[in-house]
Amino acid sequence: MLAHRLIERKRDGGRIEAGEWRALALAYAKGHVPDYQMAALLMACFLRGLDRAETSALTEAMLLSGDRLDLASIGRPRVDKHSTGGVGDKVSLVLAPLVASVGALVPMMSGRALGHTGGTLDKLESIPGFRTDLSLAEARAQIERIGCAMIGQTPEIAPADKKMYALRDATATVESIPLIAASIMSKKLAEDLTGLVLDMKRGSGALLPELDRVLELADVMIKLGADHGCPCVALVTAMDRPLGRACGNALEVEEAIAALRAEGPPDLMEVTYALGAEMLVVAGVADNTASARRELEKAIGSGRAAERFQSIIEAQGGNPAVVDDPSILPQAAECEIFTAPRRGFVARIEPRAIGRGIIEMGGGRTRLDDAGDPSVGFVITSRPGDWVEAGEPMATIFARDRAGIGSGRQALRTAVLIADEAEPPLPLVSHRVTAAGVELYRAD
Amino acid sequence: MLAHRLIERKRDGGRIEAGEWRALALAYAKGHVPDYQMAALLMACFLRGLDRAETSALTEAMLLSGDRLDLASIGRPRVDKHSTGGVGDKVSLVLAPLVASVGALVPMMSGRALGHTGGTLDKLESIPGFRTDLSLAEARAQIERIGCAMIGQTPEIAPADKKMYALRDATATVESIPLIAASIMSKKLAEDLTGLVLDMKRGSGALLPELDRVLELADVMIKLGADHGCPCVALVTAMDRPLGRACGNALEVEEAIAALRAEGPPDLMEVTYALGAEMLVVAGVADNTASARRELEKAIGSGRAAERFQSIIEAQGGNPAVVDDPSILPQAAECEIFTAPRRGFVARIEPRAIGRGIIEMGGGRTRLDDAGDPSVGFVITSRPGDWVEAGEPMATIFARDRAGIGSGRQALRTAVLIADEAEPPLPLVSHRVTAAGVELYRAD
Repeated sequence: MLAHRLIERKRDGGRIEAGEWRALALAYAKGHVPDYQMAALLMACFLRGLDRAETSALTEAMLLSGDRLDLASIGRPRVDKHSTGGVGDKVSLVLAPLVASVGALVPMMSGRALGHTGGTLDKLESIPGFRTDLSLAEARAQIERIGCAMIGQTPEIAPADKKMYALRDATATVESIPLIAASIMSKKLAEDLTGLVLDMKRGSGALLPELDRVLELADVMIKLGADHGCPCVALVTAMDRPLGRACGNALEVEEAIAALRAEGPPDLMEVTYALGAEMLVVAGVADNTASARRELEKAIGSGRAAERFQSIIEAQGGNPAVVDDPSILPQAAECEIFTAPRRGFVARIEPRAIGRGIIEMGGGRTRLDDAGDPSVGFVITSRPGDWVEAGEPMATIFARDRAGIGSGRQALRTAVLIADEAEPPLPLVSHRVTAAGVELYRAD
Repeated sequence: MLAHRLIERKRDGGRIEAGEWRALALAYAKGHVPDYQMAALLMACFLRGLDRAETSALTEAMLLSGDRLDLASIGRPRVDKHSTGGVGDKVSLVLAPLVASVGALVPMMSGRALGHTGGTLDKLESIPGFRTDLSLAEARAQIERIGCAMIGQTPEIAPADKKMYALRDATATVESIPLIAASIMSKKLAEDLTGLVLDMKRGSGALLPELDRVLELADVMIKLGADHGCPCVALVTAMDRPLGRACGNALEVEEAIAALRAEGPPDLMEVTYALGAEMLVVAGVADNTASARRELEKAIGSGRAAERFQSIIEAQGGNPAVVDDPSILPQAAECEIFTAPRRGFVARIEPRAIGRGIIEMGGGRTRLDDAGDPSVGFVITSRPGDWVEAGEPMATIFARDRAGIGSGRQALRTAVLIADEAEPPLPLVSHRVTAAGVELYRAD
């Protein structure tokens, strides 16, 4: 009866109170509210919206449907980064060990691939033996010992959110700013953080392509953080082209390892340093982003960051030798160079087409229990704005077989546009959002 | 994938095409589309609406998800009546045998109690032995033989509607005009009618209390009928008080039998004749409502209508002696007179409170498989506008036990308002709606 009454009220544009959200989330997590009622409510929320107090109450209700990490007792700053997702976005793989190596605790809880975007858990699991399904107790012990754990949403964390998230995916109720914000923040607040940095992707390959929607989502999440004692800073970064060169699970792990050795492509390094510096400042480990950045560069230069990644891999059952020898990663059976079909400027490399191409090639998650082949994907060496001659190599396709190469070639043909002129791509990091408002981003 | 795409499109205010509705209804009827996706779609339809073409396509899709009666081959006019439901509304029990006795075929498919309103099937089943679950083949044979069958929605009829209707009830997506219209008309069109009369209730006890919404629903249904070759006429009738005197399954059967003997209360007779005359005209059995009404009065006066009810009861396994001896019906163990608490005008007898009182007394359907006790209810002899003295009998309460009498008394105290002045109640039959438009009702 509760669910029916709340559906009816939200349907008619009314508000759902904090106690009602709490009762509903608990009942849903326990299976006492059927999916079809929750689906109707989610659609009503999608179309009628949630105000700030409701979004905050829903976040808290999902948080309270499960347990939290207890990290405060370790007595050190705890910081995480969340990305709204993109193609080639392996920043988490670099940032978690890097920031942990500089002294903050990083309880990083990540997700799976969604739609055309990749998932940090899927990438990590391409490392032979790597386990992401630690229990909360295991994760806490590991964070205390080596400063970082890289895990998935455990069954203990926000179980109401976990069920609701899967349901939203099936019922076309994903792209709602309050529902997105509450889902992300219920999980992040369960990490017991002292600070959180948000990587808000914009552009054609992002969940929300338009800047105004991205800024609206950032604002809602920053306010949710403030409501719950977790200061947040958001950077708006470009997802009108893939980030870095590698796209595909094992290929991205290899590129992340290169980045930890200061050998990553410049755009990946730039986004990593920008986000990492904000993490150290919001956590109170550094006074300003300039000094924070110097710390991060030192940790990479000295090899400390790469060593920390090794420790994390070892602690989570993976083969740590991968950091010195990435050929341990799954290797594709076939590869082929993709060359420029004509001369001109690279006007576009469309991330959605790249992401969908990887799924086509068997490298994507098609079902919850099937992670796909981690070896397939692309290494794209051309960037938007480059000049290319006809026949010049632009990318390498990695596939399971010749049919996969064909799919990959087709995906690149769709994704890559060469023209006589090229518009400048989006700035890599364009805006910085805090509780005080939005400003244009300026690296110190 | 189809369902997800359609949810997304309707969510964003787009249209669903006829072929898509057809594929969706078939897949849903077969269990290939889960309830949670349909629930999200129904909420999106509720909030975004369906245009006329979509409503027509949804109606047809639900119709085509199952079988139809084939009555055309019998070669006689086929007509039915649909009521949007109310309290004390036993008109179907009178009309089906009455109209059949005048020469039209009446393939009457009715529903169960819903919320505070009663259901024709539940009333019929209070007759010992009466079966409403005939197969389509049984119903057709009976209609050919005696001109009428009174059945429920068989599993063969519009199975997509049957599942969707139960889902709408659980997901607060009932009160949507296009969804109501498509649901009703998909079933009525499966009856292979040459004409249909709609009894559109308005007032506090109706599904849609407001006249403008009632007229909107009538307009949509009449257009759906026209789209599918089934001419419809609607009468708007009053549901600001119960219809007739008896409220409760067996008590209403008794009153319907009295009406078939011309001994029904005046309001019930008036509504029955008004609807019945429209049925005969829309079916082409009579030239105008005045002559139609004379035919109906003759059928009642001669006993032909009551005999036809006897034939129907006998054909459907019930005890036909009930028509001569209504004491065969289940009898309540306890009864008590309800008297006026003060002198004054009867200002209101609220149908919702009466309907809920019957449920409280154990006479309602609380679960699908539990029809409740058919013997309980009320016979209310006072009408709105009557003058009563304190202590004057107004109604009789029929209950299973003393606790039930207490509930019944409480319901009447809530339902009945006596005041120094009384507004006139709604006109019994106020409007007539056809494809040509709305007119004030005027009995010929």
